[in-house]
Parts: sequence; structure tokens; C-alpha cells
Amino acid sequence: MKKVVAVVGLGLIGGSLAAALRGFEDYEVLGVARRQETVDYALSHSICDRATTDASTALAEADVTFLCTDPSIVIRYMKDYREVFKPGSLVTDVCGIKTAIMEASKVLPDTVDFIGCHPMAGTEFSGIEHSFPELFQRCHFILTPRETSTEAHVDLMHRMADYIGAADVVTTTPERHDDIIAYTSQLMHIVALSVCDDAELFRCKGFEGGSFRDCTRVAALDVPLWRELLTLNSASLTKVIGRLEENIHSYRVALEHRDLERITAKLEYSSNRKRRMNLPGPGQVSAEWLEEK
Amino acid sequence: MKKVVAVVGLGLIGGSLAAALRGFEDYEVLGVARRQETVDYALSHSICDRATTDASTALAEADVTFLCTDPSIVIRYMKDYREVFKPGSLVTDVCGIKTAIMEASKVLPDTVDFIGCHPMAGTEFSGIEHSFPELFQRCHFILTPRETSTEAHVDLMHRMADYIGAADVVTTTPERHDDIIAYTSQLMHIVALSVCDDAELFRCKGFEGGSFRDCTRVAALDVPLWRELLTLNSASLTKVIGRLEENIHSYRVALEHRDLERITAKLEYSSNRKRRMNLPGPGQVSAEWLEEK
Repeated sequence: MKKVVAVVGLGLIGGSLAAALRGFEDYEVLGVARRQETVDYALSHSICDRATTDASTALAEADVTFLCTDPSIVIRYMKDYREVFKPGSLVTDVCGIKTAIMEASKVLPDTVDFIGCHPMAGTEFSGIEHSFPELFQRCHFILTPRETSTEAHVDLMHRMADYIGAADVVTTTPERHDDIIAYTSQLMHIVALSVCDDAELFRCKGFEGGSFRDCTRVAALDVPLWRELLTLNSASLTKVIGRLEENIHSYRVALEHRDLERITAKLEYSSNRKRRMNLPGPGQVSAEWLEEK
Repeated sequence: MKKVVAVVGLGLIGGSLAAALRGFEDYEVLGVARRQETVDYALSHSICDRATTDASTALAEADVTFLCTDPSIVIRYMKDYREVFKPGSLVTDVCGIKTAIMEASKVLPDTVDFIGCHPMAGTEFSGIEHSFPELFQRCHFILTPRETSTEAHVDLMHRMADYIGAADVVTTTPERHDDIIAYTSQLMHIVALSVCDDAELFRCKGFEGGSFRDCTRVAALDVPLWRELLTLNSASLTKVIGRLEENIHSYRVALEHRDLERITAKLEYSSNRKRRMNLPGPGQVSAEWLEEK
């Protein structure tokens, strides 16, 4: 009999993950959605092998459960279904924050393993209609295992990451994840939103190039999801926003003073950092080596 | 006999433009570069019909001259070659600033027309090796004609824009161009550079997703070119940087206060602005309509 990987929540990420996991080893992909409409869509678009609105029955037979909903719903799910998850099974998630999720996972019984997961992939769209199995191609696949997580489960996560096309698997602690993601992901959203707040926005139609489209792309975000991500990580995020404010301000001062020497030095410094950041890695190049280069 | 369009400066933009213009009406594309090496590259890669290092001879026979160099060199070129441009010909450029260029073009004799031009296209790379004829596909093609520019020349610019694949032609004043471009282009570069100035940059390898790559892409910029663009437009640019600082700061304050209601309202506001900005236009949708929507 085939093993079962349940994907709970068939939105952009869940739908894409289910579709990407189809055919993985001897697993069958079982989608779980709240609405029958989503189940029908998933089946008619071959996103899952099976799909249902009956979460209890699905979780009871799942060897692996991916919780692909907003953080608050992941947290509630673990609490509400704690007795339902199959003993010996692995529960995991895809949330963009990890400390609150790992903390909430403590509600699970000892018979159920939990590994935090964050595939660094997404688009500015939401919903199963926007899902596609190639979403995870070349993404970083971040894991925050428990100290007690079994080697077999960690290994299984690696094989799934590989199967869906991830570039690499990065293992870290939930605290470090949240600290870094405040910078690499959440700050980028704050910047995109803030750029769109400019009073001149709509008067600039016809004058946008690639840099504007790229920088503001993610501003068209899913408000309920991002409200949770940003507020659950506000301590790290406000620090990194403060640092960006200083760095932007420093460029403004140099330009106000028309200090050509300083502007040139700053442009050399920043653009070289970006070029070094573009070098191959991680694993191949360490942060220390990049700093020194 | 064929007419001649000369492209002076065969870098990323010049090389791409020359290649994109090949076959346009009854024009022959004549590339002009300082180094013989660039001329050889252009010819062996079919970037131009002809190419030379002899600017004087080229300009004397050109019916249209595109100056595709850094702004300071465009300015010097018009001065140094003012007597060389063919009488009745059109001179134009591709610079990301227009006021200083239009001002400098006054040095040209009355027999030569000048139309400022800024195709909103580019990449973070420079040099003829990175040029490609599709660069201008779907870009906005901005024109700042003189009051005295002939209808025939303006019309010719429109036909070339269309031929190289531009989405539309936007005609404006040099002052308005520089004001708006400070926001849609230069500010995006300041943001990308400032994000890369964060002390944590290199420690974040393995945690980047699409939003980080998109926002910072343009930070790997051409320093001599951007030093000129930024300083020649510093009055407009410092204003718009100040506005962004305020908008980012406002997000930080809302997050520091953990003011959920305010954060939700801000996310709704900003993301809706981005969605409205993504609607079709310009021409189809006015700034006023977007503001009111």
C-alpha cells in the first residue's frame, strides 16, 4: 500500500507543493481543503492524487502532513488535531516564520514528529488558480528540525526538497531563521509597500522600467497572511527596518552635500557587495570570506 | 542610397539599440566606438551593418545620430562635434536624465535638430558583450523634443520606437522626466544599494528568495554612469528619498507599537495602490482615476 503525504491548505504554496510532490517515491498526495470547490479544482487540474474536505480522516492516514495555511491556522490546526495525527508520522509546515510555529508544535503528542520548513519560494499571487509545480525550482529549502526529530524524517525532508527541485536544503534554528528572514524577505515587502505609498505613484505611469517593477512586485500581497508574518516577527523586523533607514539616509546626505568623492566611494562599496553576494554559495563561499574579499 | 543611423557608444544600450535597429526602413546602422576591439566585436556579432572608430566621418554622413554614452560624454560630444553633424540631421541620446542633456544640446547649430530620448530599458550588466536586440521589448520610450523639433523627426522617433519593440512612446518635458525618473528609477537603485549595505548581507546567503533578488538586482551597477545620473538629478532625488524614508519609518512605528489595526489598514492601503498601479495604462487609465478608485 502507498504511503500518504497530506497537504493541508491548497493555496498558492499548498497547491504548488502538492502538484510538485506527485510521483514522489511511493507516496500518494492527498489534498485537504476547506471548500469543496477547491477540492474539485485540485482534482480536475491533477494537483493531487486524491483530495478531500475531511481533515480528520486525511490526517489519520497521513505519514507526512504539510500544513500550508496562514501561521495562525497552522497553530490552531496542531492544537485542534493533536490527537488525530497518525502516531509515528511527521508534521511539517511552510510558514515564513518559525519561532512561533516551533513553539506551538509543542502541543503535539510525543508520538508525532515536527520539523519546521520554509521553502523560499512564492509569487505575489494567492490561491490554487495561481499554483504551479515549478514554483520551488532552485529555491532554498529551509528546515528547523527539533532536537528530537528523527534522522529518517530529516532525510525524508531532504529527498522531498530534492524531488520538487529545490537548490539546496539549509538547516538552522527558528530564531536565526526569523532574524534573517526579517531582512531577506519581510524587509523587501516593507520596501515595496513603502515605495507604493509615494504620493506620485499614479502620476508615474509610463515611466516605469524593470527596476521599478522588480522592486514593487511583491507589494500586491495577501494582507491577512502578511499581517501575521510581520507582526509575529516585529522585534527582528523593526531592527532591520531601522538599519535600512540609516543606510538610505546616508545616501541622501551624500547627495544633498553633492559630495562626489563620497558618492563614488559609496557606489563602489555597495555595488561591490552586491557583486560578491552574487557569487556562488552557500557552502562554496562563507560569509567571512565574502566580508574579507 | 541608404540613409544612415549612427549609434555612438556600443555598450549595453548602444549595442542593443544598434542590433534592434538593423533592417529599419531604408536605414543602414553605423556603429561608432572608441576601441577597435569593440568595432570588431560589433561586426563579428552582426550588431551593426558597418562600424568604425572614426567618429568624424561617421557623424558627417549620419541622418540620425544616437549618442549612447554616459551623460558627460554625450555633453562633450555635442560640443566637440557641433560642426561635424550633417546639416538637416537629427541628433538624439538615450540618457537617464534629460534636463542637463537638453541644456547642453543648445550648443548644436540651428541646422541640426535634437530630441531627447530615454528608453526605459536596461539590465545590471554593461558592455557590448551583454547587449541583445530584445532589450527594448515592451519598454516605455520617453521623448523630450525641443519646441522647434520637426514633426518629421518626432515621427521618425516614433517609428523607430515601434520597430525596436517599445510598448509606447511617452512625450514629456525634461524637467518632468527628471522629477519622475528620480522616483521610478534612481530611487530603486538607492534602495537596492542601501539594502546591500546591511551588515548582515553575507550572513544571509541561503535565505534569499525572489523578493530579495528582485529588489537588489540593480545594485550591481556601473559606478561611473550612475554617479553622473544621481548627481545630475540630486535635487529631485533627495526629495523622493526623503519621502521614502518617511513611508518606511511609518511602517516601523506601526510595527513597534504592535498596532494591529493600523498595520492592517496600512497593508490594505499600500497593496491596493500596487494592484491599481498594475492596471493597464498609460492612456487607458489616468492618474486621477487611479487615485479615486
